[in-house]
Amino acid sequence: MLLEKIASPADLKKLAPAELPVLAAEIRQFLIEKLSVTGGHLSPNLGVVELTLALHYCYNSPKDKIIFDVGHQSYVHKILTGRKDRFDTLRQKGGLCGFIKRSESEHDVWEAGHSSTSLSAAIGMAIARDLQGANYKVIAVIGDGALTGGMALEALNHIGHEKRNLMVVLNDNEMSIAPNVGAIHNYLGRIRSGKTYRKAKDELDWLLRRVPAIGGRLAATAERLKDSLKYLIAPDGVLFEEFGLKYFGPVDGHDIGKLIEAFRQADKVDGPVLVHVLTTKGKGYKPAERDSHKWHGISGTYKIESGQVIKPVGPPMYTEVFGSTLVELARMDERIVAVTPAMPSGSGLLSFAEEFPDRMFDVGIAEQHAATMCGAMAMEGLKPVFAVYSTFLQRAYDQVVHDICRQNLNVVFAIDRAGLVGADGETHQGVFDIAFLRHIPNMVIMMPKDENELRHMLYTALKYDDGPIAVRYPRDHGLGVPFDPEFKLIPIGRWEIVREGDAAVILAMGPMVQTALEAAELLKRDGLSVKVVNARFLKPMDVAMLRQLGAERLPMLVLEEGCELGGFGGAVLEFFAREGMHHVPVRILGVPDRFIEHATIKEQRQMVGLTAENAAAQLKSFVLRRMQRAK
Amino acid sequence: MLLEKIASPADLKKLAPAELPVLAAEIRQFLIEKLSVTGGHLSPNLGVVELTLALHYCYNSPKDKIIFDVGHQSYVHKILTGRKDRFDTLRQKGGLCGFIKRSESEHDVWEAGHSSTSLSAAIGMAIARDLQGANYKVIAVIGDGALTGGMALEALNHIGHEKRNLMVVLNDNEMSIAPNVGAIHNYLGRIRSGKTYRKAKDELDWLLRRVPAIGGRLAATAERLKDSLKYLIAPDGVLFEEFGLKYFGPVDGHDIGKLIEAFRQADKVDGPVLVHVLTTKGKGYKPAERDSHKWHGISGTYKIESGQVIKPVGPPMYTEVFGSTLVELARMDERIVAVTPAMPSGSGLLSFAEEFPDRMFDVGIAEQHAATMCGAMAMEGLKPVFAVYSTFLQRAYDQVVHDICRQNLNVVFAIDRAGLVGADGETHQGVFDIAFLRHIPNMVIMMPKDENELRHMLYTALKYDDGPIAVRYPRDHGLGVPFDPEFKLIPIGRWEIVREGDAAVILAMGPMVQTALEAAELLKRDGLSVKVVNARFLKPMDVAMLRQLGAERLPMLVLEEGCELGGFGGAVLEFFAREGMHHVPVRILGVPDRFIEHATIKEQRQMVGLTAENAAAQLKSFVLRRMQRAK
Repeated sequence: MLLEKIASPADLKKLAPAELPVLAAEIRQFLIEKLSVTGGHLSPNLGVVELTLALHYCYNSPKDKIIFDVGHQSYVHKILTGRKDRFDTLRQKGGLCGFIKRSESEHDVWEAGHSSTSLSAAIGMAIARDLQGANYKVIAVIGDGALTGGMALEALNHIGHEKRNLMVVLNDNEMSIAPNVGAIHNYLGRIRSGKTYRKAKDELDWLLRRVPAIGGRLAATAERLKDSLKYLIAPDGVLFEEFGLKYFGPVDGHDIGKLIEAFRQADKVDGPVLVHVLTTKGKGYKPAERDSHKWHGISGTYKIESGQVIKPVGPPMYTEVFGSTLVELARMDERIVAVTPAMPSGSGLLSFAEEFPDRMFDVGIAEQHAATMCGAMAMEGLKPVFAVYSTFLQRAYDQVVHDICRQNLNVVFAIDRAGLVGADGETHQGVFDIAFLRHIPNMVIMMPKDENELRHMLYTALKYDDGPIAVRYPRDHGLGVPFDPEFKLIPIGRWEIVREGDAAVILAMGPMVQTALEAAELLKRDGLSVKVVNARFLKPMDVAMLRQLGAERLPMLVLEEGCELGGFGGAVLEFFAREGMHHVPVRILGVPDRFIEHATIKEQRQMVGLTAENAAAQLKSFVLRRMQRAK
Repeated sequence: MLLEKIASPADLKKLAPAELPVLAAEIRQFLIEKLSVTGGHLSPNLGVVELTLALHYCYNSPKDKIIFDVGHQSYVHKILTGRKDRFDTLRQKGGLCGFIKRSESEHDVWEAGHSSTSLSAAIGMAIARDLQGANYKVIAVIGDGALTGGMALEALNHIGHEKRNLMVVLNDNEMSIAPNVGAIHNYLGRIRSGKTYRKAKDELDWLLRRVPAIGGRLAATAERLKDSLKYLIAPDGVLFEEFGLKYFGPVDGHDIGKLIEAFRQADKVDGPVLVHVLTTKGKGYKPAERDSHKWHGISGTYKIESGQVIKPVGPPMYTEVFGSTLVELARMDERIVAVTPAMPSGSGLLSFAEEFPDRMFDVGIAEQHAATMCGAMAMEGLKPVFAVYSTFLQRAYDQVVHDICRQNLNVVFAIDRAGLVGADGETHQGVFDIAFLRHIPNMVIMMPKDENELRHMLYTALKYDDGPIAVRYPRDHGLGVPFDPEFKLIPIGRWEIVREGDAAVILAMGPMVQTALEAAELLKRDGLSVKVVNARFLKPMDVAMLRQLGAERLPMLVLEEGCELGGFGGAVLEFFAREGMHHVPVRILGVPDRFIEHATIKEQRQMVGLTAENAAAQLKSFVLRRMQRAK
């Protein structure tokens, strides 16, 4: 095994070029085997085996900075930089992170879980290098999907302007997570097919070579033409050349020799270059090559031979209930359209797309555009549902404020992956959306206690005509509750008491309602009778109920799977302060003021104390202290 | 006067084409005269007189949707749509809005104060139109500066993909607010100059016309070449053609006849088109043509003859103090660099740019890229200062969370226009940044009570090495205080008591410290002795002082020029809840949960009650109620 000898990029450089394909095959086998147990981003990593080998063969990490856009395709990089023995712990608590992680290795120079940041990182590093008189390469590896993200295009525009030495490696696999959309994608497709440009270019060359023989004015013109040929001919990569980057490619991304040659050529150029590399997601593992979509990220285990993925069993996921409910509602109201920023499958919209292809809009990785476009759709009478993960909605904060809420447009936000998200860790936690949405005027925010309530909330949101409305739900299974036969309108801002009690009260929403009920059950053993409120509207709050609860002066625990600062608990405190009800004792249990690393969701809840046991303990000590003080 | 006859676009259509230039001249005169009294965005509007006339002449607003990107160039549109008599009230309280405002006119179809949203609006409306079987034109008018905003490029990518009928009018004046930067800008410059492409294209045409006479294989090749000429030749606008839009232009934007002709031609095309219009900012008013930069937005009045702008006198603006202080600090530390998203002048960075051109980075309208690039610069040892308006920082929320704070990078945020901003109104209020920043782990947020403290805060921020740190300051004059001779480090998280008192306490920051002192002075007359705290660190708070204040059990008023929900007041409440200090009576006076329209800053403070009088009245009634309850 060659792989056994590779503990660092230096070991890689000792190999003969002919050994590299052998090593590539070993790495593929390693990935297929390891991930069959741990799950993880299989197909993106199978696609970049040769590319990563060629990069580490040609460049000197960590002196040279290799930046991976969305670090989930960095497994090969991790294998080559001394971490192959830790792959059994991938994405597990305390184990190897599924993304680039600076604390793991000096070879990890830029962390990302959101896409399209690598070009900004690259030009920032290149500027720092030049200003400090240092001398190293800066290389950003970015997928064709990530390239359509607005910030990547902003950076490309700036890179072309700055003209500094840096290399963009465009890892073009024709996919982001779903198949790509957009004009840039089509453009890359034309390069790949090579149909129009290259043939015509060759022919013009041939023609012009013969023209001088003709003599006279024709010849003189042809001479001038040759000078301006580089402007005249639309070369492969003209789009990038127009942006000011020298284009190389397309290069077969599974031919290490060709990759090395391309990098050597590109290195000779002064200024920014783009090397266009064609790869196949899932390369070398037949099931993943056939359906690289499904194999993008595997959360369970799988059988290597058959490619059968063993998914955890349980009630339907909230995502699935959202998807099927939206289909039902869309059958009843043809104004309903769905918008996704490159996540049709992850957001549960595949069946919607199948049944309503004309009403489904996948805009690519473009959250800002998606949000504002939804606003315009709403303005002209449609009922757009913007299906987006909580963490990616962060990208559209300004569009939510400035375009949607300020104009008070009827956009429905279906915020998936709200709360703690498990193995994806820090970069993907959906813990900020309450805090970044609730202060925006005109916004309504809901969260269901179970999947049945999710259905009613989606129905309610689509019937609501007074402005933007959001329903957020967790990355989790539902509770397995039955669905009501009919859709119901939930009165805006109305909470519900799900358990009565007279010693204390817990306000909770989403999965935390269940946790609160369990905590109440625990406290019952201690003789404490605890009321539990399903605070399903985070905004507007149920002020009548809050006043009532405040009047009862019960110790109140707010249990929220969101950041503790500026969250729902803060909203409750602000309400009581505004009402002059300063006597209501409130305690908040939420996600503390730090980033939460990868682990299972259950472990993460334990890490931050969002468990029934801790809620019960906290509330008990709170009640006891109140009672002691009252004495 | 033709202008007197124009009360709606219908009146415009009654004019003969030859009358349009006359009307254009009248409108120019009207704008120059009216704005000399009210101030406003003079040069952008002088640049689009003919363009706006031609649009309303060719299309049927409001059935056809004319969308103005960043509505500040919509004055001509307002004149033509029945609002010319209201120009004396421009940007004043209750008067004409300086941007597109749907409540003003049915011709105003999409509001914006932030740039680059119009393309998303256009495709959203086009989709709604098509799905509903309607039939109208959708036209987005976007500047070349706004086109480099990431969300515009995201939208362009989607527009090319959707292939629906819509028109993008690229108003190319070679400027956003400052001169443009970036590769797209250079690209447009090459089109404008017409140097390379058109001449070479003509010559190739000429050559190929002669080739068939040669006969044989040469002729056959030439025939095939002609077929593929449209691919082969890089035409003007190839960048847009690659994005999937049919390109028309460049067109002289001050020749109404040519504009009308271009629109008629573009109308014949099925699918998305882009009409590239060349305009001159400030056209027709010599002082503005000479320095369109200065004349972009005039906040005072000016003398028409001389072009002399009468600026309000007073102590230096916070922006100026920031700029001059940064220059001083940059002389002492060569790691300091400045980054602006297209606002070098507005952010007070002109003298920095002059003295340190190599350390000044104007990235164009690209807040997302700017923020993340700062992160990378910090990672490699520079001290980047991201100078940005509060309202535009909204665009970079995710980059602040995911790239900067999560990686805990030493980026200094210089947040200008924090708080209420006056005449720009709703779209520009800097009232959300406390709420959208304070819940992000690792973030430090400061606000100075005066311009002298701003200097120390900037110094402190640049000495701070533990992560991101922000200093926010208002769009206002300083207090006229003298500068300390030496820079001082302010201990992180340390507040200061600026007035002692024993009956109540006001926590305030920034300009509100002054308001609080005035309120305390008013209350002194009522016999109430009020302590005033300069809560200059919004995060981390001065927990020692808070504990002390809590122990004193004084009624506490939080005075903040930021949104009342999720703001600093909420942070104080959360702290006391966390500490179990439920007995501290806190009242919050901030900006209520609605968007605040244009007026002067003083009027806006009155509108929301952020005045010394109201603070005093609120605190007095609060104290009295507490005293009554204590009885």
